[in-house]
Amino acid sequence: MRELLLIGIGAGDPDWITLQAVGAIQRLDVLFVVVKSDELDDLVQARRAVIARHRSEPLRVVELADPPRPWRSAPDYDQAVARWRAERLAQWSDAVAAALGEGEVGGFLVWGDPGLYESTLAICTELVASAPNPITLDVIPGISSAFALAARHRIPLNRQGRAVQLSPARLLRTGMPDGIDDVVVMLDQHQVFASIDPTGLELYWGAYLGTPDELLIAGPLAEVRDEVLRVRTEAIARKGWMFDTYLLRRV
Amino acid sequence: MRELLLIGIGAGDPDWITLQAVGAIQRLDVLFVVVKSDELDDLVQARRAVIARHRSEPLRVVELADPPRPWRSAPDYDQAVARWRAERLAQWSDAVAAALGEGEVGGFLVWGDPGLYESTLAICTELVASAPNPITLDVIPGISSAFALAARHRIPLNRQGRAVQLSPARLLRTGMPDGIDDVVVMLDQHQVFASIDPTGLELYWGAYLGTPDELLIAGPLAEVRDEVLRVRTEAIARKGWMFDTYLLRRV
Repeated sequence: MRELLLIGIGAGDPDWITLQAVGAIQRLDVLFVVVKSDELDDLVQARRAVIARHRSEPLRVVELADPPRPWRSAPDYDQAVARWRAERLAQWSDAVAAALGEGEVGGFLVWGDPGLYESTLAICTELVASAPNPITLDVIPGISSAFALAARHRIPLNRQGRAVQLSPARLLRTGMPDGIDDVVVMLDQHQVFASIDPTGLELYWGAYLGTPDELLIAGPLAEVRDEVLRVRTEAIARKGWMFDTYLLRRV
Repeated sequence: MRELLLIGIGAGDPDWITLQAVGAIQRLDVLFVVVKSDELDDLVQARRAVIARHRSEPLRVVELADPPRPWRSAPDYDQAVARWRAERLAQWSDAVAAALGEGEVGGFLVWGDPGLYESTLAICTELVASAPNPITLDVIPGISSAFALAARHRIPLNRQGRAVQLSPARLLRTGMPDGIDDVVVMLDQHQVFASIDPTGLELYWGAYLGTPDELLIAGPLAEVRDEVLRVRTEAIARKGWMFDTYLLRRV
């Protein structure tokens, strides 16, 4: 058999990795690394540090040069995305077929958790289903930035008896969903929190969670949103990138 | 200073613990253990095994005999819950004041993640705010059963561009929330999934996740709900308890 492991390595702090993920890294024969054309040096370094810390035996590394994702403004956006997906699937399938031998273990490292707003699992599921040789697929859960955010702010995600929503930013453009008091937003490229009605809302915001650069701001949305925008802009200017996560909470 | 650590230890598999949680266990001077009157031997054993595995130095253990939670059918339920909360807070505060000395580190182990459907953090936040000596509180995130479920079923929690809801079972009694395709339910004591309209829904169910007793069932809700009810009943008869988690997904 061949094995493919999707290894969640947590959302920032290198100590947020689980023992299961460490064990998986030590079992790997080959590591597949998706390299984006605009890949951030800090993230490449952080991923290398994870491997260097937990792996003393040599490891074969196969780099997958990620085709650029189509722009949202592309005229045939939906078709372009479908082509982009097919291209990635073909590329990954070829790489796994070529590099993963009988009895070997291959793996991908995934920031946070492989099950939340992450495309690696979807592609690998298709890859395994169409692979010429049988491959078992296993997922190793990780600390998602939603939980990292709550831990660093020392708050529960939910209120007593109430639901919590994990949501793409786009769905919040018209405000908080009906009947929901707590929404966690990841990867908001347009700072939707700053454009919705702040009445009755609190913001718990965090960036570079669990790292020496960590930024945390919390308070009534109307009072802190300008500060968050300012701190965001300054940090991006300084570091060149930002991953941030926030919780919007009805008070 | 005094420190109090809420340590998420993950939702089943002992290897779902993070390096941060392991480090926290090794730093503890005193471990506070909440003991319920109906505490399950398996869980007590599992918690002891976590300590035994990661801790070679001796550790002071303070047991907190949990007052029984009021029944929902109690005539003055809300007041009874308020009294129960106050009683726990007073008990924990006294125990921490007595056992946690200057410069010492105390901790609680929490199954899953301390931020999700868990009361330890709320009590400790109050405890720290009213403590006679300053105490710093830190939260160590853990693998929640929601992510454990998705990992073991090898599925993403969310669909492309869509939100995911984490919800108490009670809120699902009238069916899926409007506009939401994916809902994760934890600690459902009444098998709400079996009483809602199954049309267009899939169920991903798991119990004893990440343990040798793990049970996983997935399929169209209309087809698998009776099987889940049967397997649940048999497993509870065999083991005496069950923790289960499920995802309801619109197809």
